[in-house]
Amino acid sequence: MRPTTAAICMLTAALGAAAVRFPVPPASAANDPTWLLCGRLFHEEWYRQPLDHYDFKDTRTFQQRVLVNTDTVDWRAPVIFFYTGNEGDITLFANNTGFMCEAASEFGAALVFAEHRYFGRSTPDADLGFLSVQQALSDYAVVVDRFKASRAVPDAPVIAFGGSYGGMLSAWFRIKYPGVVDGAIAASAPILQFTGITPSDTFNDIVTRTFESSRAGCSHAIRSAFERIERTPTGTLETAFRLCKPLPGRQQLVDWISNGLAYEAMVDYPTEASFVQPLPAWPVNATCDAIMGDGCDDDPLSCFVAGVSVYFNSTGNAGPCNDIDVDSSPSLDEQGWDYLACTSMVMPMSSGPASMFPPQPWDFDAYSLACQQRFSVTPDATYAVREFGGNRLETASNIVFSNGVLDPWSGGGVLSSGNPSIVTIQIPGAAHHLDLRASDASDGAPVQEARRIHRASIRQWIRQARSRTPSMRRSVAVQ
Amino acid sequence: MRPTTAAICMLTAALGAAAVRFPVPPASAANDPTWLLCGRLFHEEWYRQPLDHYDFKDTRTFQQRVLVNTDTVDWRAPVIFFYTGNEGDITLFANNTGFMCEAASEFGAALVFAEHRYFGRSTPDADLGFLSVQQALSDYAVVVDRFKASRAVPDAPVIAFGGSYGGMLSAWFRIKYPGVVDGAIAASAPILQFTGITPSDTFNDIVTRTFESSRAGCSHAIRSAFERIERTPTGTLETAFRLCKPLPGRQQLVDWISNGLAYEAMVDYPTEASFVQPLPAWPVNATCDAIMGDGCDDDPLSCFVAGVSVYFNSTGNAGPCNDIDVDSSPSLDEQGWDYLACTSMVMPMSSGPASMFPPQPWDFDAYSLACQQRFSVTPDATYAVREFGGNRLETASNIVFSNGVLDPWSGGGVLSSGNPSIVTIQIPGAAHHLDLRASDASDGAPVQEARRIHRASIRQWIRQARSRTPSMRRSVAVQ
Repeated sequence: MRPTTAAICMLTAALGAAAVRFPVPPASAANDPTWLLCGRLFHEEWYRQPLDHYDFKDTRTFQQRVLVNTDTVDWRAPVIFFYTGNEGDITLFANNTGFMCEAASEFGAALVFAEHRYFGRSTPDADLGFLSVQQALSDYAVVVDRFKASRAVPDAPVIAFGGSYGGMLSAWFRIKYPGVVDGAIAASAPILQFTGITPSDTFNDIVTRTFESSRAGCSHAIRSAFERIERTPTGTLETAFRLCKPLPGRQQLVDWISNGLAYEAMVDYPTEASFVQPLPAWPVNATCDAIMGDGCDDDPLSCFVAGVSVYFNSTGNAGPCNDIDVDSSPSLDEQGWDYLACTSMVMPMSSGPASMFPPQPWDFDAYSLACQQRFSVTPDATYAVREFGGNRLETASNIVFSNGVLDPWSGGGVLSSGNPSIVTIQIPGAAHHLDLRASDASDGAPVQEARRIHRASIRQWIRQARSRTPSMRRSVAVQ
Repeated sequence: MRPTTAAICMLTAALGAAAVRFPVPPASAANDPTWLLCGRLFHEEWYRQPLDHYDFKDTRTFQQRVLVNTDTVDWRAPVIFFYTGNEGDITLFANNTGFMCEAASEFGAALVFAEHRYFGRSTPDADLGFLSVQQALSDYAVVVDRFKASRAVPDAPVIAFGGSYGGMLSAWFRIKYPGVVDGAIAASAPILQFTGITPSDTFNDIVTRTFESSRAGCSHAIRSAFERIERTPTGTLETAFRLCKPLPGRQQLVDWISNGLAYEAMVDYPTEASFVQPLPAWPVNATCDAIMGDGCDDDPLSCFVAGVSVYFNSTGNAGPCNDIDVDSSPSLDEQGWDYLACTSMVMPMSSGPASMFPPQPWDFDAYSLACQQRFSVTPDATYAVREFGGNRLETASNIVFSNGVLDPWSGGGVLSSGNPSIVTIQIPGAAHHLDLRASDASDGAPVQEARRIHRASIRQWIRQARSRTPSMRRSVAVQ
C-alpha cells in the first residue's frame, strides 16, 4: 500500500494510478493442497460461486478457495470462526492471524478462512467488474451456509474475523448479514475512512504523531529533510540514495520515501517481523535514531538516507542500488485492491499542515481521472458511506473494533461508540492489527488485554446465539 | 397474483410459469406529467441510476421515476416519507396509500414515492437480469441521498413505507441501510414466507380460515364444491360457469376459481373497493352467503357459481362468458414479479390437509423447471433468507410490521417479536394492508389503532433521528 503517497501518486499520475493499499504480507506457505498455517494442517475446499450473485441470468461461476481446519471442533457444541479474506492470498492471512487459531482451541471452533474473489487462487475468468465488496460478502454468506450444511451444524454460532480491509469486511458482514454472522472481531478496520466522515489529512497526521512519539523532534527532522530534498540537486540525491536510475523529478523520490515511512508506522511492531518488509523491532525508533544521531547536524542527508534505509534495506541485502519504481510493499494482487479503491472504496488521503510530509491536497477529480485511465471506471466517493452505512452504527451490534494507537489507519477506525453492543479498543503501543497476530513473549499488557476482550466478547456472542429460541433459528435445509 | 394456485399453475405448467403475486391495483391516474394522487398534485422527478450498482465497468444507466409532493413540508424541521415502490406503476401505490398523505400533513413531511426498476415507467432498456431486490434497494438509497442533497436537508429523518412486496422492501431497506432510513412502516409484508421458516401450506390455510370465520361451514361447502367439480362432466361445468371456451381439463377451472377465492380473502375490505376487481364490501361474506343460501342443498353447483361470481362478476358487467385464460388479477407488469419469484424471491405455496382447496404439494423442482422454461433462470430457494436475514430480526430496529388477520399473506408476516424496537400489530377484521389506505368512515377501531401506533412509532423515530449527535450524522456532501 501507499498510505501516504498513493494519493500523491494518483495526483501526479507519474507512477500510474496506484491507489491506497493495506499491507499484504509476502507469501510463505508451500505450494501444496494442504497447508501448514499457524501450526495446523489446513485443507482446501473449493466452493463454486455465481460470478454475479445479483443477476440470475448470468450463469457463470468461479471457484472460491476456502482453507479449513476442524481439529479442535467440539462437535457437540460447534462454533465457526470465519475469516473474511482480504486483498491477497488467503494463506497469508491464515498465517498472520494466529489469534484465531489460539482461540479456536479454547472455543472448540472450526477455522474457516475464505479467500476474497479475484485474489490468491480465487480468480474468476472474467473482467474486474465482478470484484466488489457486495459480491464478496455474498460469497462469504454462501460459504457459511454450505459449510454448515456439509457438516450438519445449522445452529453453530458464527464469529467473523478480519484485519484491515478484512476487518472492514467482517464488520460489514455482521452489519449486513446478522442472520449469518453472530459477531465480528474487526481489527484495524478503517470503516470511517470515507468522504464526509474522516478528514483526508488524518492518516498522515497519525504517521507524523507516531514518529514524533517515538522520539521528540523526529517528525520535525523528517519535515526538514523533505524540505532539503527540494533544494538539493537531483544528481546529489541520486548518489546519496544510491538510486539505480536517474531521477525524472524529485517527486518520485519523495513518494518513495513517504511510502516507506508510512508503512513503517503501520507495522511498527515490538518484534522483528516480515509483514511487508523484513524489519527490526520498533522500526520507527530505528529510523528516528538514525536521523537524529550524533553528527547528523553536520551531514543530515546521509543520516536521512540511513533512516530511510531502515525500511528499505534493514537486512543490508536489498541490492547494490534502490529501484524506486518497485512498489514499496511487495504485495500480491495489488491490481485488485487498486480497482476497489477506484470504484466503491474511495478513501481520501492528503497531507495537511500537521503532517511531516510535503503538503498534498486531496483532489478527487485527479484521482477519478487516474482511475478512468487505468481501469476505465469512475469512482463514486459517496458510495461506501451510502451502501455500508458510514458512522451510523446505532443499529449495529456484536462487533469489536480494535485499533492500535500507532497505526495510521486508526484515524479512520471506530475509536468510540455510544452503542453498548459495539466494543471499541484502543491499544497503546500497537500498530496495524497486532492483536490478531499470535501471542508472543514480547506482547505488552495492552495487546493482551485486547485479546482478553476479544475472547470475552466471543464468549458472550456464542452464549447469545445458543440462547435463541428454536423458532428464531434459521434452517439452512431446503424443505 | 395467484396466491393459491400460482404454485399449482407452476406445477401443471398448463397456464405457463406464472408465479405467486401480490395484488396490484389497476391504473387510474391520468397520463400527465403531474399527478393528482391522494388529493395532492405530485410532480415527476427522474433519477438517472446505474443499471448495475455493483459493477462500475457497466456504465449503462436508466431513468427512475419518482413522484414528489412537498406541499406540507416544514422546512425548518423537514422529514422525508419515502415509499419503496413495489411491482407496479408507482402512481397506483401513491393512490392507494392514503395513510402516508394524511400523516405527511401531521409530520411536516415530504412525500416521495419511488418507482421500482422494471415497473411502470422506470423500465431499463436491458434484460431482466438487473431486476433484483438488491438493485432496487440501492436505487432507493441513491434517491434518498440525491433528494436530500437537492433540497439541502442532509439531516432530515427518513421514514420508509410500503405494503405487500413494498413492505418487504421497506423493512429490508431499514435493515440493510440503517444509515439511510430511520424507520419503516412495513404493512402486510410477508418477509417470512420463505423456505425453512413458514410452512408452504400456511397461505391457503389462512384463506380457508378467513372463509370459515365469515360463516361457519363455508370452507367445508367450498371443499365439497371442489370435490363435486371432479365428478361433474366438463360439459356441465362449461355451461354452469358460462365458460367462453371448452375446458381442456378440470384443473384449469379449479385454478381459476381458487385464484379468485384467494384474492377475495386478501382484499376482504369492509367497503366497496376496486383494488384487484370491483368488489362489494366484505366480498367473502357475499360469496359464503351465495354458496350457503336457501335451496343450495338442492342445486349446490349453481350456488357455487354464484359465489364465485362475487369475485369475477360482482358488477354483472363481466361480459357474456368467462375467459379463464385471463389473469384473475388484471395487474400490470406481472412479468417483472414473476421474474423475481423465479430468481431470489421463491415463496413456496401449497394446499395441505387443512385447506379448502384441492390438495397440492409444493414441488420446487417443477417450479424451477417452469422458471427455466419461461425465463431461462434457476430459482434459489435459500437465497432470500441468506441475503435478507429471514426471521433473524434480533438486530433489526425501528420497524412496524402490521398484518391484517384476514390476510392470507399474514402467515408469512412478522406477527410477534421479542425485540422491543420491532413493533408488531395484528389487525382483526383487516385484509391486505388496509392500514395503509386512507382513513374512511367505515374504519373500525382496530385499524384506527394500527394507524395510531404507526404515528407514535414515526414520532419516536423522528425524535431519535434528531437527537443524534452531529458526529453521528452523515454528510451527503462530497468534501
